[in-house]
Amino acid sequence: MIQRIDHLGIAVRSLAETVKYYEQALGLKCEHYEEVPSQKVKTAFFDVGGVHIELLEPTSPESTIAQFIEKRGEGIHHIAFASDDITGQLAGAKNAGVKLLHEVPFEGAAGKLVAFLHPKSTYGVLTEFCMPKPGAAAAH
Amino acid sequence: MIQRIDHLGIAVRSLAETVKYYEQALGLKCEHYEEVPSQKVKTAFFDVGGVHIELLEPTSPESTIAQFIEKRGEGIHHIAFASDDITGQLAGAKNAGVKLLHEVPFEGAAGKLVAFLHPKSTYGVLTEFCMPKPGAAAAH
Repeated sequence: MIQRIDHLGIAVRSLAETVKYYEQALGLKCEHYEEVPSQKVKTAFFDVGGVHIELLEPTSPESTIAQFIEKRGEGIHHIAFASDDITGQLAGAKNAGVKLLHEVPFEGAAGKLVAFLHPKSTYGVLTEFCMPKPGAAAAH
Repeated sequence: MIQRIDHLGIAVRSLAETVKYYEQALGLKCEHYEEVPSQKVKTAFFDVGGVHIELLEPTSPESTIAQFIEKRGEGIHHIAFASDDITGQLAGAKNAGVKLLHEVPFEGAAGKLVAFLHPKSTYGVLTEFCMPKPGAAAAH
């Protein structure tokens, strides 16, 4: 079952510039940086009342984030829902006719298990399910 | 000060189709419908752990939501931050060099005071500040 929105992923050209914007113009505080080599991105996290904003800067032109920015410009890239049962969540979506990008969850940032639905099935919103890895302490 | 994410606005062609998707594929429950004639949209709200998803279907081709869909397709349209001081929030953003779409907040859906920042100033993310109207009971 979906319990809450875990984070919003936002594609940006420069973490340095956008972190400055979120801090100075919005008054939020960057709490954590993390590089995710498997996704070819550097990330910066803001906690906004329990929901994270995850800024994503590509570290390579082959990153899907670089391709997204090339095609659509900077902006909101995906929404991630925290589920208490990611396998059941994926099965339920598939059963309702949704195409999955990942049939089996994999390890994403902050040690979570993650999987994405295909945006062609989700009315234009790239949608992620995530869940803490069983036995792992929550990174945030 | 920003306290939390109030809602995410998602531009859709058909509320009927997308409400069905959010309910059947994601297991969320639509809790409220509202038409906002001033914005030429019909909306459907989902409560996801205290953050609302607001689906927006244009009721006229002149709606900014219709224009968004025409240009970019369906997808996430804006992010709204709940502030405890919308006037101070706007002043702080302006002071940091952000262009405002509205210098003075106006009444949006659910009886809230709302104002938007110009997306050219916000790294591609159409950004709303909102606050319950002073003296008004929260609609949700």
